[in-house]
Amino acid sequence: LYSDKVLDHFSNPRNVGEIPDADGVGEVGNAKCGDIMKMYLKINGGVIEDVKFKTFGCGAAIATSSMATEMVKGHTIEEALSLTNKAVVEALDGLPTSKIHCSVLAEQAIKAALSDYYKKQ
Amino acid sequence: LYSDKVLDHFSNPRNVGEIPDADGVGEVGNAKCGDIMKMYLKINGGVIEDVKFKTFGCGAAIATSSMATEMVKGHTIEEALSLTNKAVVEALDGLPTSKIHCSVLAEQAIKAALSDYYKKQ
Ligand code: FES
Repeated sequence: LYSDKVLDHFSNPRNVGEIPDADGVGEVGNAKCGDIMKMYLKINGGVIEDVKFKTFGCGAAIATSSMATEMVKGHTIEEALSLTNKAVVEALDGLPTSKIHCSVLAEQAIKAALSDYYKKQ
Repeated sequence: LYSDKVLDHFSNPRNVGEIPDADGVGEVGNAKCGDIMKMYLKINGGVIEDVKFKTFGCGAAIATSSMATEMVKGHTIEEALSLTNKAVVEALDGLPTSKIHCSVLAEQAIKAALSDYYKKQ
């Protein structure tokens, strides 16, 4: 049902936690299942230096968020804004169709955190 | 958002795992979010001696399953059949409305495992 990469990122998620002095914080909810996701970004010179997330969401939400944080960490804001949940799912070698809605949380939370960062500038 | 009991059972879930020589195994899927839950029962003389579960579901699914397994362990089959997801949610001091659908997984998985047990007799 789940790829090795999904199971790896679910059992051993990267970048879980909070950043107390984050430059941008995004919180989004999933209309389909009611889960929530909170994303923290530390930004310096247009580059995402650190990123952490917290969720009460399912295994697929944890795995996609873990992978998404790895894909934006050390990258520019522009690169992060162009990250799609499709690219994250592909990097995880796929997800069951019924769990695609979970992968949207990470993408939306990163965008919400970047929008919060711009608001604060 | 979540009660202390929910957070406790989420962070430190009871009875997670598999029972290789289970007397009844139930697997159910959640139509709303696509999550799955697998429940294993060890039954002796009409009493549920051991119970374990595995899920890829969200925090609410993990917390309700953890609580539900505690509520049936050491109890009779009849008592387990009368356990409702409402009683489990109450034992956890409530869940947000958007997450009530997650609590159905544990109740259904226990009933599926008991039905599997009866089929094998
Ligand atoms: S079911 Fe809610 S995030 Fe996956």
